[in-house]
Amino acid sequence: MSIQEILDQIHREMLPRRDRGEVATYIPELASIDVSRFGLAVATADGQVYSAGDAGVPFSIQSISKVFTLSLALGKIGNSLWERVGREPSGNAFNSILQLEREFGIPRNPFINAGAIVVTDVILASSSPAEALAELINFIRYAADDANIYINDAVALSEKATGHRNFALAHFLRSFNNLTHEPDLTLGTYFHQCAIEMSCRQLALAGRFLINAPGMPRLISRDQVRRINALMITCGHYDASGDFAYKVGLPGKSGVGGGILVIVPGTAAVAVWSPGLTAQGNSLLGTEAVQSLAQQMDWSVFG
Amino acid sequence: MSIQEILDQIHREMLPRRDRGEVATYIPELASIDVSRFGLAVATADGQVYSAGDAGVPFSIQSISKVFTLSLALGKIGNSLWERVGREPSGNAFNSILQLEREFGIPRNPFINAGAIVVTDVILASSSPAEALAELINFIRYAADDANIYINDAVALSEKATGHRNFALAHFLRSFNNLTHEPDLTLGTYFHQCAIEMSCRQLALAGRFLINAPGMPRLISRDQVRRINALMITCGHYDASGDFAYKVGLPGKSGVGGGILVIVPGTAAVAVWSPGLTAQGNSLLGTEAVQSLAQQMDWSVFG
Amino acid sequence: MSIQEILDQIHREMLPRRDRGEVATYIPELASIDVSRFGLAVATADGQVYSAGDAGVPFSIQSISKVFTLSLALGKIGNSLWERVGREPSGNAFNSILQLEREFGIPRNPFINAGAIVVTDVILASSSPAEALAELINFIRYAADDANIYINDAVALSEKATGHRNFALAHFLRSFNNLTHEPDLTLGTYFHQCAIEMSCRQLALAGRFLINAPGMPRLISRDQVRRINALMITCGHYDASGDFAYKVGLPGKSGVGGGILVIVPGTAAVAVWSPGLTAQGNSLLGTEAVQSLAQQMDWSVFG
Amino acid sequence: MSIQEILDQIHREMLPRRDRGEVATYIPELASIDVSRFGLAVATADGQVYSAGDAGVPFSIQSISKVFTLSLALGKIGNSLWERVGREPSGNAFNSILQLEREFGIPRNPFINAGAIVVTDVILASSSPAEALAELINFIRYAADDANIYINDAVALSEKATGHRNFALAHFLRSFNNLTHEPDLTLGTYFHQCAIEMSCRQLALAGRFLINAPGMPRLISRDQVRRINALMITCGHYDASGDFAYKVGLPGKSGVGGGILVIVPGTAAVAVWSPGLTAQGNSLLGTEAVQSLAQQMDWSVFG
Repeated sequence: MSIQEILDQIHREMLPRRDRGEVATYIPELASIDVSRFGLAVATADGQVYSAGDAGVPFSIQSISKVFTLSLALGKIGNSLWERVGREPSGNAFNSILQLEREFGIPRNPFINAGAIVVTDVILASSSPAEALAELINFIRYAADDANIYINDAVALSEKATGHRNFALAHFLRSFNNLTHEPDLTLGTYFHQCAIEMSCRQLALAGRFLINAPGMPRLISRDQVRRINALMITCGHYDASGDFAYKVGLPGKSGVGGGILVIVPGTAAVAVWSPGLTAQGNSLLGTEAVQSLAQQMDWSVFG
Repeated sequence: MSIQEILDQIHREMLPRRDRGEVATYIPELASIDVSRFGLAVATADGQVYSAGDAGVPFSIQSISKVFTLSLALGKIGNSLWERVGREPSGNAFNSILQLEREFGIPRNPFINAGAIVVTDVILASSSPAEALAELINFIRYAADDANIYINDAVALSEKATGHRNFALAHFLRSFNNLTHEPDLTLGTYFHQCAIEMSCRQLALAGRFLINAPGMPRLISRDQVRRINALMITCGHYDASGDFAYKVGLPGKSGVGGGILVIVPGTAAVAVWSPGLTAQGNSLLGTEAVQSLAQQMDWSVFG
Repeated sequence: MSIQEILDQIHREMLPRRDRGEVATYIPELASIDVSRFGLAVATADGQVYSAGDAGVPFSIQSISKVFTLSLALGKIGNSLWERVGREPSGNAFNSILQLEREFGIPRNPFINAGAIVVTDVILASSSPAEALAELINFIRYAADDANIYINDAVALSEKATGHRNFALAHFLRSFNNLTHEPDLTLGTYFHQCAIEMSCRQLALAGRFLINAPGMPRLISRDQVRRINALMITCGHYDASGDFAYKVGLPGKSGVGGGILVIVPGTAAVAVWSPGLTAQGNSLLGTEAVQSLAQQMDWSVFG
Repeated sequence: MSIQEILDQIHREMLPRRDRGEVATYIPELASIDVSRFGLAVATADGQVYSAGDAGVPFSIQSISKVFTLSLALGKIGNSLWERVGREPSGNAFNSILQLEREFGIPRNPFINAGAIVVTDVILASSSPAEALAELINFIRYAADDANIYINDAVALSEKATGHRNFALAHFLRSFNNLTHEPDLTLGTYFHQCAIEMSCRQLALAGRFLINAPGMPRLISRDQVRRINALMITCGHYDASGDFAYKVGLPGKSGVGGGILVIVPGTAAVAVWSPGLTAQGNSLLGTEAVQSLAQQMDWSVFG
């Protein structure tokens, strides 16, 4: 089968599925998403884009934004970032605070909330939130080669109104001097970055800079691309990262909006969207879809 | 440079190093190892073997044995293994017991001690320890195509005499009904498996079945090879697994004897030995050596 | 009402109760105890003994034995005991191992299992288990002024056969060098001490040495009596100690056999027995009974 | 010796001491306190007040205020308070957040910061912060029979400016719906309550309502007095509560300003002040002073 045929087949198989997990309910904008949505897109190293289902419908990328902010932050301050964030899987939930206490305010990795808040704090540096967000959006638009990517302000406001857990994390980081701005400022930026909306097509295109192949957008060095892929495979699915690596065999980063960005090094970037989540906060059918795709395409980083 | 030249150069660079970490001291047999030992070997998919330094000197493979027992156990009982062991990084030390309490006796993964003890328990099944160990040794000898691989009984006895932490783990597992044999029996087998001795050459050769390339020994299915590689990259270096993936970009499994087995999917198996350890229990110079080798060979699973 | 009338009234109120909690089920000897048993006895500083219900029926004192071994150990090695055991409530279950890992093998207090195992290890010193147990039994017989107190060997053997959690604790302590004997030896003694059987009458009488009043058996110094009472009030009911202090207002020590020993300093020793337990492992009706007794007698250490 | 002579003797012994612990440094107002300050006062049930040293100098009572807010809150909503706060020692530091995560937002007891913030939230109910603080101050003034007790606004502002750990706790509580007001509002009140200043004389007098003796101010029921004393003895010194009960044998509550309020049920209220703290955040010499006082007066709740 061709890629397109495989995508269509996966789409057909997912359409009638009833067991779709639960959509995130902590903000009305996510709670009201139609759980039956399903989109899938693949951008290949040879410049093609394939898609199926709702691949053109924008959704809230949420934590997938952490891949882009990490790329920006590494570009800005390089390895000194690792003085403020670790590189190890956490063994705990994405919004857990207990390990942060035990490890004196150094988040385990940049993909759990605490670590991502520190990364956002780095991006802010001496910029205003508006400037930092503009820089981030421009980074993503350039990567996707698409100017039509925006932040959903209503989502950002809702995140802020209900984000007590993140405020707790930010204040906690600050109490350990691992936040250089006031929690309000960093979190204001963080909530907006999570509220970026993209379609699967846009996200797959935006992920091409992580493929490490000739002709792909070059936004960070080849070494840094490899390292972000390494972090995605060990930490990209919170406390289900090991399971994702085991089943799918590819680096990926999920968001509670139901999206997953998956990289096939040297070959392709994949974006999937199905809003129903597992208990760990990852897209249920999205994971199955990329597992099926990887199997049929024989894509795996493990030989 | 050729592979051989690169190995020689790495060997030369490592020889004068003073900062070698500390050898494991919990048993006399490991404590007395000369910290200046250094071996490196590469077995490639095209059937060549390259080596440098003490690559022919046998050392205690310790936790690297967990890769072989896991392969055996998956062959025996397949995916039902995952009812008794998880697949997630632990976020804790290799011999930690606290997560085991919080997670009701299900070890986080097969590469921390608790998980590996469960895997050994699976291999025992209805065999005697002697039979199970014979099966394991035969598996490894077949993989390495070398009959000259043995267990060091003195090491096994020392492990048993000082293994109170492992006895605690085994009894704890048993209290959760996640150990089918008496702790003494399972641990007796476990201590012997850790006491297997191999040289870097032998270990690199024994690792070829994980390369997933034509002509390599086929001991488990292609899918299972990928999955073991996935577990190695997310969990193979205890609470430094994320760091190893970040720096080296390849699946690997370390042992407190100072050895590391590293897989370059589709390309090669690498074994390194330097007995000095980091605080996390991984070979200090061994990690640096494979990082250097991967960089110079441009080996990475991440593109 | 007189004490005797109050005891009788409490007995009458408890008899028809259906919500009695669950008896301990980890060994057959405890699992087969009739949950409707209820005994209550009070030994007062003026030499009287009052009782109601099954106050003459022997039951397994289990962890209440920890009060007697602690008294013995403090008599033997005094304050140096506190180099090996803490004096703080644990905030965790009685058989938890995780705090032990985090606090490097020093149990939080002598009344959780890990701490009690260390205390037993102290009592063993250079004695044989048989000698140490004889010393303990003699201590208790002298305190109760009753030679008719024995160890139930069948219970001790059952404890040993199912005591994997305690074996885990003992090996863990040993791995931190906080156990001077082999786990088998210390635990053999520990399981026997837990298997001592006493009736409520015997237990109330045996508790008189903790009343600190003239005419009571003097087995340890007045200061040590106070300190053991302090430990009982802060740590005597595992992770429900705060609740017991709040509701009853008196020092007490419970056992999974369903017994509780309660001290009214200067006034009386109380023993209650009702085999049904709360989730925390304390006697459900026993706690209610002593709460009712304390209220009606206006007994409280808090004014 | 008379009480007065004992107080004078303790004062004399403490004066030359060099090992005084460290004053709290997280706000300038506490950091600048003279570590050599020492005050001691006793208010007895027969209406006398004795004092020594700096017993007339006001200091920041900090967490001792939690005793007064708990008394107020129990008066307001009674036992329903315990649906929002536990009654168990925490086994962790006063400002720890990890147990709060594991126990779903229910603080372990009202004397750790998280629990005290919930208590303050209760006191606020539908009052404004100004009204709630006025009620609290009036409660304390009535208890001490002294109108000259005030809040130090500069301390409250400093607490707020540096109180990121408490903000983290409050947001965390809010994320579990265990905070009914905005964190800013509850914490604003909390920081002011901690900034109340009293002398040892005033504090000893204010503590008389917890003595449970005729003629003492009656602010809450006799049962509630006993229960607050129970909470003080099991939880009043954070993770050193067991040690305080063991050494001193009396209910007490400490504050990082270096003060301790100690109750001798039926007999007296004691206040001590020495600003140098132990690692657990309790007054070093203050603890020793009340231990010495209790020993010489033969005061103990344990017979």
